[in-house]
Amino acid sequence: MSGRTARRRVVRVTLSTDGQGDAPAVRSTARADLLAGEEPLGIRVGGTALSMTMRTPGDDLDLAAGFLVGEAIVGSPDDIAGMKVCDGTSCGHLDHAEGEIGNVVDVTLAPGVTVPAAARRSFLTTSACGVCGKTSIDDICVLPKAPLTADATVFAPAMITAMPDRLREAQRVFDSTGGLHAAGLFTAAGELLAVREDVGRHNAVDKIVGWALLNAKLPLAGCALLVSGRASFELVQKAVLAGIPLLAAVSAPSSLAAELADEAGLTLIGFLRGPSMNVYAGAHRVGL
Amino acid sequence: MSGRTARRRVVRVTLSTDGQGDAPAVRSTARADLLAGEEPLGIRVGGTALSMTMRTPGDDLDLAAGFLVGEAIVGSPDDIAGMKVCDGTSCGHLDHAEGEIGNVVDVTLAPGVTVPAAARRSFLTTSACGVCGKTSIDDICVLPKAPLTADATVFAPAMITAMPDRLREAQRVFDSTGGLHAAGLFTAAGELLAVREDVGRHNAVDKIVGWALLNAKLPLAGCALLVSGRASFELVQKAVLAGIPLLAAVSAPSSLAAELADEAGLTLIGFLRGPSMNVYAGAHRVGL
Repeated sequence: MSGRTARRRVVRVTLSTDGQGDAPAVRSTARADLLAGEEPLGIRVGGTALSMTMRTPGDDLDLAAGFLVGEAIVGSPDDIAGMKVCDGTSCGHLDHAEGEIGNVVDVTLAPGVTVPAAARRSFLTTSACGVCGKTSIDDICVLPKAPLTADATVFAPAMITAMPDRLREAQRVFDSTGGLHAAGLFTAAGELLAVREDVGRHNAVDKIVGWALLNAKLPLAGCALLVSGRASFELVQKAVLAGIPLLAAVSAPSSLAAELADEAGLTLIGFLRGPSMNVYAGAHRVGL
Repeated sequence: MSGRTARRRVVRVTLSTDGQGDAPAVRSTARADLLAGEEPLGIRVGGTALSMTMRTPGDDLDLAAGFLVGEAIVGSPDDIAGMKVCDGTSCGHLDHAEGEIGNVVDVTLAPGVTVPAAARRSFLTTSACGVCGKTSIDDICVLPKAPLTADATVFAPAMITAMPDRLREAQRVFDSTGGLHAAGLFTAAGELLAVREDVGRHNAVDKIVGWALLNAKLPLAGCALLVSGRASFELVQKAVLAGIPLLAAVSAPSSLAAELADEAGLTLIGFLRGPSMNVYAGAHRVGL
């Protein structure tokens, strides 16, 4: 059951009303269908469990690295001394090039890099909040104030509106399964740098950011990140921590996403469809 | 910034190519837009933090109760001795009827009802997995085998295909913000019993299940649950634990969702659009 996709037998049911009676005719046909793979991935630091996510297998080292960026634990490839993939029982080292086998990634941080006590306590409940007293945006936000204001990149509206089609063209799995979220990283000139897909939209972004970290491309100044779904608070936080000045979503942002984008100096675009978009924060980066 | 929706000033940008030159004309207009509310909700049991979720405020007691059903901690209203809503600092009791103020719900379980050590350890990492050794479907699944096979309800195809329109009609917020997931609970006769919305699709389902629990309607035998997005492993697990024999999604299921549905005896439908659907498991409940 491992892999990016899984083949499965399904029954396709279609109703047709031909006007000949009260009850619609029902046609059903059995056929094979391709589903998006979904399996748990445990993320450990130094052998200690930090987090678990349901993800589409593949790019697991990128996913783990990007997760650590999004939690403000690492910020450069030098912060990671090593990573290994294992099956959760015997955590022997597997070479990345041999393939990413298993559902656990164990990360060894470089000397001096640690999981802050607050962050570790935070993972002790779930991925976004710590002890339950954290109930405001200030408490759950791990960002410094306005970290992106120095990025003066301006993005042409035509480049922005062209991103969704570019992303769809580049997706390898979506067309066949219809079940994956996608994230794409673009330069301001419209060049597509990376595409990742996952059953979880946060994971697709983590895979992009982790790829950038491990290839020494952080911070992603001057870049734009497009996500196929909605823009949540957590996606805004991940973009900001990766140094990305523009986040665009095909669908709607939440109220907290827009508020945090404002505070961090991020340009936030929603409802990016066809020739139109809504700019919720940082409109100065959209060349009007 | 509290509430189901938040009003925000946005810049609407539209490109138009009129064939008069190379560069498209850009029109931008400022206007007010309504965004879906998103705030953290901490869930405590007996004063101890169990989980945190980013949710759209409203129906918070239902959300907390439904979360506990989905983790197999409670199964009847008698399992909960009391619930209170607080702001995370002073956790005084607030009457439900006075309104749900604050971003923490504290649940007091009835005598003899406890959070299993395994579940508590599970929350110590995140919502779905425990210690990182849990890496297979058997490990993360909290369900007994085939709990739904005794439910012999048959659903008419025309009733199933009618659900998405019924759900959209009943949604109070989606049309205005475009940013919310929805879940709707139906009888086999097509009666809509409950609709809930949230920035998180899991939360929308938890709100339905919690409402059912607190109104002594569990298990939801003979009912169908429709979700507006995709069907994940976790949504299948939540449906099964609520005793719902049919889960339908407007979009795709994951591979693990289909596998778990098979094992649990759940009827799983995906791509429910217009007159068509794909049945991924339990096709015997679809009246063909």
